[in-house]
Amino acid sequence: MKKAAIIGVTGYSGIELVRLLLNHPNIRIHSIHSSSQSGVNLAGIYPHLKNIISDELEDINISKIANEVDLVFIATPSGISSKIIPELLQYEVKIIDLSGDYRLNNPNTYEKWYKHPAPAQEDINKAIYGLTEWNKEDIRNCRFISNPGCYPTATLLGLAPLVKSKLIDERSIVTDAKSGVSGAGKSLSRVTHFVETNDNLTIYKVNQHQHIPEIEQVLSIWNENIPFITFNTHLVPMTRGIMATTYANANKSVGSTEQLVDLYKTTYEDSHFVRVREPGNFPGTKEVYGTNYCDIGIAYDNRTGRITVVSVIDNLMKGAAGQAVQNANLMFDFDERAGLDHIPIYI
Amino acid sequence: MKKAAIIGVTGYSGIELVRLLLNHPNIRIHSIHSSSQSGVNLAGIYPHLKNIISDELEDINISKIANEVDLVFIATPSGISSKIIPELLQYEVKIIDLSGDYRLNNPNTYEKWYKHPAPAQEDINKAIYGLTEWNKEDIRNCRFISNPGCYPTATLLGLAPLVKSKLIDERSIVTDAKSGVSGAGKSLSRVTHFVETNDNLTIYKVNQHQHIPEIEQVLSIWNENIPFITFNTHLVPMTRGIMATTYANANKSVGSTEQLVDLYKTTYEDSHFVRVREPGNFPGTKEVYGTNYCDIGIAYDNRTGRITVVSVIDNLMKGAAGQAVQNANLMFDFDERAGLDHIPIYI
Amino acid sequence: MKKAAIIGVTGYSGIELVRLLLNHPNIRIHSIHSSSQSGVNLAGIYPHLKNIISDELEDINISKIANEVDLVFIATPSGISSKIIPELLQYEVKIIDLSGDYRLNNPNTYEKWYKHPAPAQEDINKAIYGLTEWNKEDIRNCRFISNPGCYPTATLLGLAPLVKSKLIDERSIVTDAKSGVSGAGKSLSRVTHFVETNDNLTIYKVNQHQHIPEIEQVLSIWNENIPFITFNTHLVPMTRGIMATTYANANKSVGSTEQLVDLYKTTYEDSHFVRVREPGNFPGTKEVYGTNYCDIGIAYDNRTGRITVVSVIDNLMKGAAGQAVQNANLMFDFDERAGLDHIPIYI
Amino acid sequence: MKKAAIIGVTGYSGIELVRLLLNHPNIRIHSIHSSSQSGVNLAGIYPHLKNIISDELEDINISKIANEVDLVFIATPSGISSKIIPELLQYEVKIIDLSGDYRLNNPNTYEKWYKHPAPAQEDINKAIYGLTEWNKEDIRNCRFISNPGCYPTATLLGLAPLVKSKLIDERSIVTDAKSGVSGAGKSLSRVTHFVETNDNLTIYKVNQHQHIPEIEQVLSIWNENIPFITFNTHLVPMTRGIMATTYANANKSVGSTEQLVDLYKTTYEDSHFVRVREPGNFPGTKEVYGTNYCDIGIAYDNRTGRITVVSVIDNLMKGAAGQAVQNANLMFDFDERAGLDHIPIYI
Repeated sequence: MKKAAIIGVTGYSGIELVRLLLNHPNIRIHSIHSSSQSGVNLAGIYPHLKNIISDELEDINISKIANEVDLVFIATPSGISSKIIPELLQYEVKIIDLSGDYRLNNPNTYEKWYKHPAPAQEDINKAIYGLTEWNKEDIRNCRFISNPGCYPTATLLGLAPLVKSKLIDERSIVTDAKSGVSGAGKSLSRVTHFVETNDNLTIYKVNQHQHIPEIEQVLSIWNENIPFITFNTHLVPMTRGIMATTYANANKSVGSTEQLVDLYKTTYEDSHFVRVREPGNFPGTKEVYGTNYCDIGIAYDNRTGRITVVSVIDNLMKGAAGQAVQNANLMFDFDERAGLDHIPIYI
Repeated sequence: MKKAAIIGVTGYSGIELVRLLLNHPNIRIHSIHSSSQSGVNLAGIYPHLKNIISDELEDINISKIANEVDLVFIATPSGISSKIIPELLQYEVKIIDLSGDYRLNNPNTYEKWYKHPAPAQEDINKAIYGLTEWNKEDIRNCRFISNPGCYPTATLLGLAPLVKSKLIDERSIVTDAKSGVSGAGKSLSRVTHFVETNDNLTIYKVNQHQHIPEIEQVLSIWNENIPFITFNTHLVPMTRGIMATTYANANKSVGSTEQLVDLYKTTYEDSHFVRVREPGNFPGTKEVYGTNYCDIGIAYDNRTGRITVVSVIDNLMKGAAGQAVQNANLMFDFDERAGLDHIPIYI
Repeated sequence: MKKAAIIGVTGYSGIELVRLLLNHPNIRIHSIHSSSQSGVNLAGIYPHLKNIISDELEDINISKIANEVDLVFIATPSGISSKIIPELLQYEVKIIDLSGDYRLNNPNTYEKWYKHPAPAQEDINKAIYGLTEWNKEDIRNCRFISNPGCYPTATLLGLAPLVKSKLIDERSIVTDAKSGVSGAGKSLSRVTHFVETNDNLTIYKVNQHQHIPEIEQVLSIWNENIPFITFNTHLVPMTRGIMATTYANANKSVGSTEQLVDLYKTTYEDSHFVRVREPGNFPGTKEVYGTNYCDIGIAYDNRTGRITVVSVIDNLMKGAAGQAVQNANLMFDFDERAGLDHIPIYI
Repeated sequence: MKKAAIIGVTGYSGIELVRLLLNHPNIRIHSIHSSSQSGVNLAGIYPHLKNIISDELEDINISKIANEVDLVFIATPSGISSKIIPELLQYEVKIIDLSGDYRLNNPNTYEKWYKHPAPAQEDINKAIYGLTEWNKEDIRNCRFISNPGCYPTATLLGLAPLVKSKLIDERSIVTDAKSGVSGAGKSLSRVTHFVETNDNLTIYKVNQHQHIPEIEQVLSIWNENIPFITFNTHLVPMTRGIMATTYANANKSVGSTEQLVDLYKTTYEDSHFVRVREPGNFPGTKEVYGTNYCDIGIAYDNRTGRITVVSVIDNLMKGAAGQAVQNANLMFDFDERAGLDHIPIYI
């Protein structure tokens, strides 16, 4: 049984990690940490955990944590992780960072999009990008994972087969993404106030979402001719779920939806958590609710020559805590699915 | 490994049974049945189950079912179960009926409230009422469970300590209940149409809900001086969850909230699925989302002499499929918690 | 054309006053005021008002306001109004206070329930309680209205015919109230955070809501034998709307629902904004959405001898801004309905 | 005062017409019609209209209607209008059809996308397409309006300045549209069942929505080089509102967002119901709730050379009944805004 610490446990990704690890067969929660509420019982803040977890929050003593556990999950906001990780890297403990701090290889890009200082380049270089389905070998052999963002996970899993097979015009990719409100995190704002969000649909950070360079970095690794993506994000009045609707112009080698569905099925045949829909069938976000699945539907429109890819995830699961646990499983050489056998709560 | 059949699997309780049994350590789904869609793949109707269950719906051949499985869950609507169960009772197979057909001891009462013919008295007499926490011995030793209604479960678990301790005026009980829309089931109607339900709160079946006699039957067993309950039901724009807010006049022996909380804690100290809140703390429905818990908060108001009990459940879990599995565990002498270790999805 | 100022315009009641007054035939907005955002354009904060109102927020200069307008609406939180009104009372201007500061006749009661200092008794004495349907003469002849709370409006309109006709046991009244989230106002908190509110139903301030003494004060005026009410409040995942479900034991003179419906119809036959439903029909909150209506359904249950009254309002309309405008109409001797001819947006 | 009849009044567009016309200064409802519920009181079906309208539904007697009223609104589904309108056209009465039956000039195109027989070509030729802002002269002088679809209205108002100014690559247009559930109408289905829609986001009719040819028809009139549009539709868990997020590649003459915002402001400076947002500001659907406004935000991304246009409407207002009344106002030479002075209910 491996021991894990969770830093930043009171945020939404942190609480989702608690939900997953409490039922994990091979990893147990050793300690939970919060920068500001040391000594407080977690179930006092979140009464849904009453009788389930009795741990108190501890402050963040890096050396103590590093010496006591096998793995540290860091679920703090961007800009905070990079204050914790340099010290953690001095120990042997494994690290999975759920924030965006170590996802971008270029610190200048980070500072441009995140609007605050980047981590040190040498530490960035140590991080392995944890898009599990596409990086399994590196993940298995590393000690420090930078866990992908929710939007990049949905978008990249949806685009990978097309991009890697060079089936689309490289300059034509448009992803129109939509997220439930938990993606905005626990911090209070008018944007997340029920009264301004319920029965409302909004667009935000137009052309400026900090996940854009993360997506582009991976796409350009897969196909160096992809210069950019147009990517926009909408806030949907629901709690969980991301849908990325991606449009791209097909190359001439594309002739039918069936051809694309076959490609996707073949590509993901060994990927337990990616489910490819039949032609004409497309997933809704609730069909993956509470699970680590990414469901994908694809259509080729021969009237316009354009491809539509619809990929959905639960932003707190495959988009955060679920993928983090999936990565932890690989790092410890467990079955990828350990602790992730949830069945979607559709109704 | 015990084998189970689910009849009426495409309804909401049926689908929730599928979610539970697919992850149950000691019971597996042997076959799924629907009266009208024989031969159809369940994951075709509910794509969230793709790659999780590949079974086809079978028609309802009672003798075949009874001979092949250890337990039959019947998740059909009221009035349908009673057409299936008489034949099933001729075999040895265990039966858990999730409908209301066998809950009322008196057929006349059934016909008055349900507005259609009652089952035969002799079959009613064979059924054990499956309010697990209050009927464990009978449940362990029986073969035919009538699983309680969602509203009665929430209401009765909340009232039991007061009623059994004779702490309240027997004629003063008022329960104001509120349910999410999944309680209305899968059938289409204006009441469940999103456009008429979203951002709306309605009351329905005022003084006429068919769960009233079920609640009264149990209350009068616990205290024969309780003649009736006033019970009303509201439809809340959410998917899952029931809250029963119950009011009753305290007898003179009641002096404080703390006294009542102590009583509840003592009463339920061995009941894993009942969680009693501290004084001043009350549960919301989402704090039991997706789980078999019933959370209870209690307040005594010395200004008015009145007690308020707030009990919440997930109507598809403790109010239906969850309690059914809990009962199955007892019938098979498994740990009561087997397959029910879900952690609430609060966010 | 009368001129009005709105103090505290950026809160939800303030914005609703803007919606009403911009289309009022006899009152126009002269100035809008905020304590903290002087100089800011209101449509900059609320873009839905773009091209509709171009006014900037002004600071709160009491003498200037009092000299320039005929009426001041004060839509500030409790505890703030009482810092503004004493000075305003030195002028001739009419005043409608939407906060709770001047509703309770007894300052001690105010301080007990509101937990901060009460206004001066002499100023309290100057305020007329603006429950329009039951206080029309006083309202017409006064200059200072204390506008009722949202919960008291729904509860009292629902109870009035029973209480005034002495048809119920005075100690038996229980009101189980439910509100949309806009009732909690604009301030940010976990309770109003979309992620914790959506798909969730909670109860709050059990036996401690500050509207309890307001309701009891009016009830005891109507019938001095009523000592208290049990009153609880729930938060429903919807934006607008209050439903008060009230239970009381009927006296022996009550024999049928029809008798009660007739009483209500007679009582409210000249009340344009109160709509009484036929026996067996009960209102949902969305049936009054965006309007000043209070819809009421009544049932007598001869099985239990208990009466159920269901009253619904739009909390920002009849529960706040709408009733304030209705009161302003009476103060200026306009048609009570002026500027309030909205038709419910049900779908 | 002009007299209007509404055929198909019990559908959502019909009920919205009732809301608008009851407060219209120059048009009054003369009669309301339904094919199946003749003799029933409308307020019996929709109790929110109690005391507001007392009319009974009448059957559809074309000659009687045509002789008694000045204008007939037809709010029946596609395929029904075309059975009513040929006879109506034999009279002098004005007609506004809210269905899709007469929007497409080519009957073959209609049959391909609507999957049922088209109206007669000669009747199609009599209809004027009622996209008010772009067709005022024709609308003023005609007697038969084919009212635009909800999606085309949002999409076309958003695209018009770009298309007419030839600022975009004609083959690059992608519109990702999202709608509230009222857009799916009153008919019951799993798609509109609360339990399957709440907290869920789905995509539907991928590349096959029947509004695609309507949009393309208008775009090709505006710029004959536009061969097609990629257009997809999503169902958002909210009641009202459409957002069309449109992407297109900018021509070289585009250099900044400011340039585009200026173009839009100039284009729509005389269009009361179109509100153009400042650079960096984008509308949410609730900012036009209950009104006839179309709010538009525009961004040019010089990193990708792509333009994003965000246009929002209330699908039942500017997308149906509101635009129908706006068109009626022009047909009768009333102020375009008559009866449409609603202020958005944002909170």
